[in-house]
Amino acid sequence: MGLFNRRKDESFFELLTEIAGNLITGTNLLSRLVKSDLDQRDGLRDELHVVENHSDDLTHAFMNKVNQSFITPLDRDDMSQIAYRLDDCMDLTDEAATLIVVYQVDTLTEDILKQVEILEKCAELTAEAMPRLKTLSELKEYWVEINRLENQADRIYMRALSAIVNQISDPIQVIKLKDITERLEEACDAYEHLAALVEGIAIKES
Amino acid sequence: MGLFNRRKDESFFELLTEIAGNLITGTNLLSRLVKSDLDQRDGLRDELHVVENHSDDLTHAFMNKVNQSFITPLDRDDMSQIAYRLDDCMDLTDEAATLIVVYQVDTLTEDILKQVEILEKCAELTAEAMPRLKTLSELKEYWVEINRLENQADRIYMRALSAIVNQISDPIQVIKLKDITERLEEACDAYEHLAALVEGIAIKES
Amino acid sequence: MGLFNRRKDESFFELLTEIAGNLITGTNLLSRLVKSDLDQRDGLRDELHVVENHSDDLTHAFMNKVNQSFITPLDRDDMSQIAYRLDDCMDLTDEAATLIVVYQVDTLTEDILKQVEILEKCAELTAEAMPRLKTLSELKEYWVEINRLENQADRIYMRALSAIVNQISDPIQVIKLKDITERLEEACDAYEHLAALVEGIAIKES
Repeated sequence: MGLFNRRKDESFFELLTEIAGNLITGTNLLSRLVKSDLDQRDGLRDELHVVENHSDDLTHAFMNKVNQSFITPLDRDDMSQIAYRLDDCMDLTDEAATLIVVYQVDTLTEDILKQVEILEKCAELTAEAMPRLKTLSELKEYWVEINRLENQADRIYMRALSAIVNQISDPIQVIKLKDITERLEEACDAYEHLAALVEGIAIKES
Repeated sequence: MGLFNRRKDESFFELLTEIAGNLITGTNLLSRLVKSDLDQRDGLRDELHVVENHSDDLTHAFMNKVNQSFITPLDRDDMSQIAYRLDDCMDLTDEAATLIVVYQVDTLTEDILKQVEILEKCAELTAEAMPRLKTLSELKEYWVEINRLENQADRIYMRALSAIVNQISDPIQVIKLKDITERLEEACDAYEHLAALVEGIAIKES
Repeated sequence: MGLFNRRKDESFFELLTEIAGNLITGTNLLSRLVKSDLDQRDGLRDELHVVENHSDDLTHAFMNKVNQSFITPLDRDDMSQIAYRLDDCMDLTDEAATLIVVYQVDTLTEDILKQVEILEKCAELTAEAMPRLKTLSELKEYWVEINRLENQADRIYMRALSAIVNQISDPIQVIKLKDITERLEEACDAYEHLAALVEGIAIKES
């Protein structure tokens, strides 16, 4: 493989790294949003939405690149799947923020804040892992740690769900908080799906 | 490629066009249903269900054809994915109609009617696009317009959700209307997923 | 293909058969759980969770085997998809059990018990079908019967949903039961997706 192709290869991973970097920015905005007062949340949600739109554009550019390239550094289908799953992580983060704003929930529970903290760690680990796809090295700690975080998130989610459904008496409030905690859980699952995909790719290519 | 194979090719696209044509029929039935009185909805839902069953049969025939053919006019996996995503559009349309009937909601909100209007436009655009897969030409306006409609639908959905959850005091009514508006949003997303797939195929094959 | 490869092949199907066998064990535990008193459910959910964890490990081993093998007895992607869909069946069964425990619903409706009965039949049919993937023979009765069961389950689900949403006046109870009946329906859909995949594979390879 000549110099031209190598350079081309790297640009795939640079795009994925940039998309994953947006996950950090987006999740940090979600984190600020859940700790903010009601009147500051709209602005943060708008900022997050700009980040999500930017990620959509990058994902689109990445997919066009994959579809237009004669050769891709990893299996074409695996490349696409990585981009789709990164996109799921961002979409669900954005959706959770939107629900929190639309539902105008004054106080979020402690467990919801913990779910967001885990998402912040997932975003950082994922952004750190993306450039390592180039050499497919040192990825194991990434997927092991994401799995550990997802197990922790599962327990928090179940505790959150139990508290919401069994201890809150206002049904509309139950509907709202349940939706938010579920969306955050889905976001965490999306990181796990991405990590499982990366594990599969690493094993296949090794 | 000889005459025999060309003919064979066309029948793939004819089947997809027929399946997409059913989406127009089905979505029109949903549109009549949401504007009807409670006592007329059962009949329209039954009609829609017949259309959905017919589409299932066509999808099944299409998949068998893809799986049995030695060559397919487009990548085998892409062909299957198109059929699966068309099927998602129909299933979600049918599910929305079923929920509306099962929940016996007397008056549907203005925004729910608007969601259905957008689905009607999506179904028409999709049915018009399917035969163009044969030559992979003039498809860009299709996916651009579907994306525009989906963005519009997103805003309507968020406004609908906010009104339902923040302004309706009967929690059971909230549960019902929220489910309906969510299912319609999922149907619109399904059209967008199909359009994104078609875009990817068009770029790959061009 | 030499003796070594043949042996290797069989171990793929043996793993799938073991994973599907766990579905029987898991679904039987769910069945006992829905018929138990509140104070016995925690123990059964824990037992089911152990089975689910074991299945996760087997699925993981299977995926690594698929990714590490130079040749696989069926198309690599099809092998992976079978494992993923078996995993969905188990996950949704486990999630339904967890919701029932977390929500502390005293009495489950007759229709929910019927949904679980159908899942038991689906698990048995699926476990019986997995070893037949080796020869791809006598599979048709499996997918036909799963489709029949899924249609039956659909009708029960719609009746259950209608009863829950239209006849129960406590909204929190509606939220809980609706979630449980929906999750059981999703589990049944997962069996149907697996059966559709197997049908596609059988037709493609025949």
